[in-house]
Amino acid sequence: MYQERIRLPRLHDKVMEADEAAKLIRDGMVVGMSGFTRAGDCKAVPFALARRAADEPFSITLMTGASLGNDIDKVLSQAGVIARRLPFQSDETLRRKINAGEVMFIDQHLSETVEQLRGGQIAPIDVAVVEAAAITEQGGIVPTTSVGNSASFAMLAKKVIVEINLNMPLALEGLHDIAFPVQRPHRQPIPLISVDQRIGLPYIPVDPEKIAAIVITAKDDSPSNVLPPDAETRQIAGHLIAFLDREVRAGRLSPSLQPLQAGIGTISNAVLHGLIDSPFSDLKMYSEVLQDSTIELLDAGRLSFASASSVTLSRDVYARFLSRLDHYRSRVLLRPQEISNHPEVIRRLGLITINTALECDIYGNVNSTHVLGTHMMNGIGGSGDFARNAHLSVFVTKSIAKGGNISSVVPMVAHVDHTEHDVDIIVTEHGLADLRGLAPRERAREIINHCADPLYRDALRDYVARASVRGGQTPHLLEEAFAWHLRYRDHGSMREDGPLAAAVQKKEPACA
Amino acid sequence: MYQERIRLPRLHDKVMEADEAAKLIRDGMVVGMSGFTRAGDCKAVPFALARRAADEPFSITLMTGASLGNDIDKVLSQAGVIARRLPFQSDETLRRKINAGEVMFIDQHLSETVEQLRGGQIAPIDVAVVEAAAITEQGGIVPTTSVGNSASFAMLAKKVIVEINLNMPLALEGLHDIAFPVQRPHRQPIPLISVDQRIGLPYIPVDPEKIAAIVITAKDDSPSNVLPPDAETRQIAGHLIAFLDREVRAGRLSPSLQPLQAGIGTISNAVLHGLIDSPFSDLKMYSEVLQDSTIELLDAGRLSFASASSVTLSRDVYARFLSRLDHYRSRVLLRPQEISNHPEVIRRLGLITINTALECDIYGNVNSTHVLGTHMMNGIGGSGDFARNAHLSVFVTKSIAKGGNISSVVPMVAHVDHTEHDVDIIVTEHGLADLRGLAPRERAREIINHCADPLYRDALRDYVARASVRGGQTPHLLEEAFAWHLRYRDHGSMREDGPLAAAVQKKEPACA
Repeated sequence: MYQERIRLPRLHDKVMEADEAAKLIRDGMVVGMSGFTRAGDCKAVPFALARRAADEPFSITLMTGASLGNDIDKVLSQAGVIARRLPFQSDETLRRKINAGEVMFIDQHLSETVEQLRGGQIAPIDVAVVEAAAITEQGGIVPTTSVGNSASFAMLAKKVIVEINLNMPLALEGLHDIAFPVQRPHRQPIPLISVDQRIGLPYIPVDPEKIAAIVITAKDDSPSNVLPPDAETRQIAGHLIAFLDREVRAGRLSPSLQPLQAGIGTISNAVLHGLIDSPFSDLKMYSEVLQDSTIELLDAGRLSFASASSVTLSRDVYARFLSRLDHYRSRVLLRPQEISNHPEVIRRLGLITINTALECDIYGNVNSTHVLGTHMMNGIGGSGDFARNAHLSVFVTKSIAKGGNISSVVPMVAHVDHTEHDVDIIVTEHGLADLRGLAPRERAREIINHCADPLYRDALRDYVARASVRGGQTPHLLEEAFAWHLRYRDHGSMREDGPLAAAVQKKEPACA
Repeated sequence: MYQERIRLPRLHDKVMEADEAAKLIRDGMVVGMSGFTRAGDCKAVPFALARRAADEPFSITLMTGASLGNDIDKVLSQAGVIARRLPFQSDETLRRKINAGEVMFIDQHLSETVEQLRGGQIAPIDVAVVEAAAITEQGGIVPTTSVGNSASFAMLAKKVIVEINLNMPLALEGLHDIAFPVQRPHRQPIPLISVDQRIGLPYIPVDPEKIAAIVITAKDDSPSNVLPPDAETRQIAGHLIAFLDREVRAGRLSPSLQPLQAGIGTISNAVLHGLIDSPFSDLKMYSEVLQDSTIELLDAGRLSFASASSVTLSRDVYARFLSRLDHYRSRVLLRPQEISNHPEVIRRLGLITINTALECDIYGNVNSTHVLGTHMMNGIGGSGDFARNAHLSVFVTKSIAKGGNISSVVPMVAHVDHTEHDVDIIVTEHGLADLRGLAPRERAREIINHCADPLYRDALRDYVARASVRGGQTPHLLEEAFAWHLRYRDHGSMREDGPLAAAVQKKEPACA
């Protein structure tokens, strides 16, 4: 059955059980695993590692593309296998260990991990574990639903374990475009000048001698956990689409806009979904992940091409996508995250980027990662790669959370992932703040008037007014800058008059 | 005298007095002036504007490359001419107006102003005022000691005023390489793959019909105000050079390192100066400004090529440089700041970037701009362009200021210009923190042990210990995060036991 997927015959005798393959990974090693936004992760070796750790405790540095599915981060961290983790995660159990200081988490721009590996700036990879649909006649690895860092890990690792996943259709072959920046000091321009351009190979070119084990699996990716659009996310989409339409009418954008990027998540997905009924056409996407909305936009004929590093879909859309690959292959392409997120390409293509803020402040600084400034949610991911180099950098968030007891617009964010320099547009369900060309004092007016919830607008205006008396380019009252966060932490609400009843009744956890 | 510098004869009748030329600039206009780090600014029209405003108040949006010399920002802001200013400044009078909220200052990454202009995202330029050494036979403008945004301003403006500065030697011709990214959506890769490569023209190609006035001047640039190396800056240089030497020995860098960038300022200049006695050779520089140290490194044979957007030198070195241009021309090149600071080129070349922090925090976030989190010093300048895309991003600062009453290492920076993701190395006179591949809790140990002044180390350790009890990826006590800044503001010292005597005696101002 699997022999047709391993087309280099001398590799057939590398096939073994996951527990056997996992023995290649030893205490203290650096392991690079495939997986990006729950797509294309390894389905067997991680669990074999966890099983072994039950008898024989050991730990590793685990690098991936981005987040893993199938509870891999949960199982591995419960088993104590993860000592260090980079560059991104989104698992609840691992998150708890990170916030307890038990796992060292290096939160990185997704385009940078491989740069640092290549330059020897972080410890080299001992073993790469990569999911594949097939191995070619020359020993090239055909990835599955993500590329992420898999290609670089396989090429840089001393040994490679390949997991051939029989649930992945062979029709995935041809969906990938594997290319990298040339090593310095002889690095050439990345020749990518359009979203649909191929610049590499359809497989990962590794030396077959490095393939030390092949494990056969048959398991699906975890489905996306993105929620469907709701009233607020639809309003956010509406404000953004109306703004883009004004930009088109003003001649600053063409009716096909510029290539779109959207971070993974409920709000970004809803915004893209909203484009189905927009006046724009021949849209293109240059993103790190393709979500349900991408497929819907392709099906609706609104989107003509989508380039990304992974495909993360809900169960139904996933099944439909994999069964119609011949249909989608001419309109979808998966690249290494070093290319999908490369500053050079992002700046050249002039992306419109849409990423989610956990909170923003009145001056337009954005916190994407740290609850109450201290506790990690997931990580910065690719948002920094995209927002810094975008033609138009948009951040979206609902204006309130926890039934109104949290305002997503605060006097000062308690952690900065994106500085005001990298934030052009903020959108909430109440409206859109266009911050281009504005000084901080002007940005504050715009953000409070258009984005903050009416529940908090007066308090924000009062803060700005009192801070402005003390002067400054960016007026603040340092003694009060985090008073809202502290009130929430200590009294369950950012409001001075105490928690709003609705949220108290719901008894929601403080840090979700 | 000046006729030989205006080689397109039909432009001779455009020569006029500055007051006459300045009439082209009217109330509410957007004016783009040449000038970058005090080099190549216009010497006559700005003063004519200030004179006119004394009788007839008016105001403009003023854009430049970066900071101006010759007190232009001072004179213009005193005259009330500047309503809006971008993307950088370093003048005391203007700074006061900005911090009072009287001038709207849009603090931008230096590579982005022209992108935003080209995309119509900020108001278009009505008049460009550009200093030149000459106008060519075709009407091309030959810049002087900076390119900055001059070329883009001249090409995008409706009208252009050229100031021919007779003090600038004609030998400047050939020093410049004027090229830009192609307009989207047809943008091609920037073909620059080595520091010394020419990809453009030696002049600014404007339509001569747009040249509405030519003013003749004869005035020098303001000399650099960088201070000579002192004991601490020499120690900082020593730590960094020792580190780079270890990187060479470990095989992570070659003996010619990688192209260097250094922000303008006393500490960066001192660090570069320190390279004269280093074990490295055939160094190259790809920076935004060439300082005295660059010329010294060239003269010492340590540096083989320097690319930048301006030349800002002390009086003696300036005179020597201008009189020996034929000697330097094969080893120095000036580019538009959109190219010198372009993320694409910076990432491709793999720069070692050295920028100055106003303060950093225990997790490696850097504040480059805001005193006490509110009051603007100068602006972010190019530091974000460079640090984000560097191969190795270094920030330097003295560990204390105001005689020890300010610690440059604080629990939390009161303003973030560079997030921990973009900061690899921090150096003070006490030592060097290598933060590559470290999680925030590990970064804190490294920074406190190696960079903080011993006067503050125990207090920082105490903060981390107490914050860590509350947990988190980035432990903080939000109620105390700015306590140090508030103590300094209210009691003149960040120390809990009050101001140190030495500083009190000096009676230094709170915000210098």
